[in-house]
Amino acid sequence: MGDPIGPRHTAVMDMNRLLKRYRIEDAKGFRLKKHDPADEGGLALEREEAEALLATGQRRLAELQDKLYAQDRWAVLCIVQAMDAAGKDGTIKHVFSGLNPQGCEVTPFKAPTSMELDHDYLWRHVIALPRRGHIGIHNRSWYEEVLVARIHPEIIQRQKLPKGLAGKRIYDDRLEDIAAFERYLSRNGVVVLKFFLHVSKEEQRRRFLARIEDPAKNWKFNAADVAEREHWDAYQDAYERAIRATAAPHAPWYVVPADRKWFCRLMVAGAMVQALEGLQLSYPAPDAEDMARLQQARTALG
Amino acid sequence: MGDPIGPRHTAVMDMNRLLKRYRIEDAKGFRLKKHDPADEGGLALEREEAEALLATGQRRLAELQDKLYAQDRWAVLCIVQAMDAAGKDGTIKHVFSGLNPQGCEVTPFKAPTSMELDHDYLWRHVIALPRRGHIGIHNRSWYEEVLVARIHPEIIQRQKLPKGLAGKRIYDDRLEDIAAFERYLSRNGVVVLKFFLHVSKEEQRRRFLARIEDPAKNWKFNAADVAEREHWDAYQDAYERAIRATAAPHAPWYVVPADRKWFCRLMVAGAMVQALEGLQLSYPAPDAEDMARLQQARTALG
Repeated sequence: MGDPIGPRHTAVMDMNRLLKRYRIEDAKGFRLKKHDPADEGGLALEREEAEALLATGQRRLAELQDKLYAQDRWAVLCIVQAMDAAGKDGTIKHVFSGLNPQGCEVTPFKAPTSMELDHDYLWRHVIALPRRGHIGIHNRSWYEEVLVARIHPEIIQRQKLPKGLAGKRIYDDRLEDIAAFERYLSRNGVVVLKFFLHVSKEEQRRRFLARIEDPAKNWKFNAADVAEREHWDAYQDAYERAIRATAAPHAPWYVVPADRKWFCRLMVAGAMVQALEGLQLSYPAPDAEDMARLQQARTALG
Repeated sequence: MGDPIGPRHTAVMDMNRLLKRYRIEDAKGFRLKKHDPADEGGLALEREEAEALLATGQRRLAELQDKLYAQDRWAVLCIVQAMDAAGKDGTIKHVFSGLNPQGCEVTPFKAPTSMELDHDYLWRHVIALPRRGHIGIHNRSWYEEVLVARIHPEIIQRQKLPKGLAGKRIYDDRLEDIAAFERYLSRNGVVVLKFFLHVSKEEQRRRFLARIEDPAKNWKFNAADVAEREHWDAYQDAYERAIRATAAPHAPWYVVPADRKWFCRLMVAGAMVQALEGLQLSYPAPDAEDMARLQQARTALG
């Protein structure tokens, strides 16, 4: 596999080696504390350098997407999870904006509708799964069922489960079920990539303040998000449990340092490029029969 | 648990004891050959007796459905599988016709559309899963992925799986994934019941002949079904493997003798009633707050 960001930048970095630090395929004993949210991978890039690198990554991603679409075999499911203000929306915007929207759909998952609550919790996520040849980005995902639902058990109450099914084992069961479902997806041509944008509590504080002080960011501010900070440790713990139970070679987690937005975006773009390059995508080659048909059509067209 | 068919017929039969013969929760070493398709459970009923019993079952099922709907917690997924002409459509018609269609949906699964082929194979089935409070009947199901798809591997070819994912392990993997998904459903309030209507090859032959000879049945005749008889043994083997791999207390198979239509329908109705009775359904009881609100409303209405 070549340098996923493109040959021009081979000198600047070895992206694959760097990504290895953040890619978790086996998470026994995984601890978030061992991962520094402010890590820059030793890159120390200037703003313009980082932007140029990201732009190169975007172009490469668009090329790969074109082949993915033409080949029409693999689907790519990209799950983005994080604490509030870690940069989910910004990362999605900056990493995927170069893609052809005809083969790329983003689905944000907010509080479920009453129609959704009337079904099993995977239902609304399954409906939104990407088609073959497509990249589907889930902004939040089924993981919320073992994250926010663990911190706020009243969410489980609203799910209208029959009595006896909302016991202590529910989160472990859900993790087991999610892992099994992701294995199923990987067996059926859906590449599952999971990103945890790892932000520090202090950086989150700064970003909330910016949302309060910058009029252009006021719309993003939600007082409830600030209140949620009291559960910070519980969320970190819930993420650790989720990552431990569901990281696998066929459904890796990327724990991406997110205190530096440029670095976070670069790593997500790099991971996407690396994953798509690993699929060895190519435009479908015409076989002898196709060639004959092409020849026939050329004749017909005069 | 009482007699599911109703107290009036306790003298005629002990339905629960009878159903136990056909209910498979652990299928290690399961062999279809040990199950007689012509079994009548020793009932030897007259036509009118059988019809009266079925009608009683239907009424009981409708009562239970009403509570299921009002309680709005459990969903019931009823999967119906069988060889051609075993009586899937007739059984669905005669067992479920007394139900309120507002809480009961039948989804027949035929050859997938191109939209469906563009997704993982569970996708179209998940979309059709019943809502809480509802009974969903799947006429054929995800099991076709390890039945007809095993006998006709070209079906796998049409599923546009990436290279390397359609290898020898595919059917075992699918059975493992289906079992895991059914476990997930059961954990989330979806009661999974699977019926295999077990018909003999000779009885199938007689029914195909009837479809040819009876003008009212001509529309059901499909020459391809007759051709499929050459794969009879392979299908029986595929069913055995499926039942062995996926029978579980939370997702039992009912291997129902189907050579006698009246008996098959009676057993399916009995199994449905038994399963619903096992849920201990009841109309939601108003709590103190609800009572106060009811009282308030009574006053307001004068």
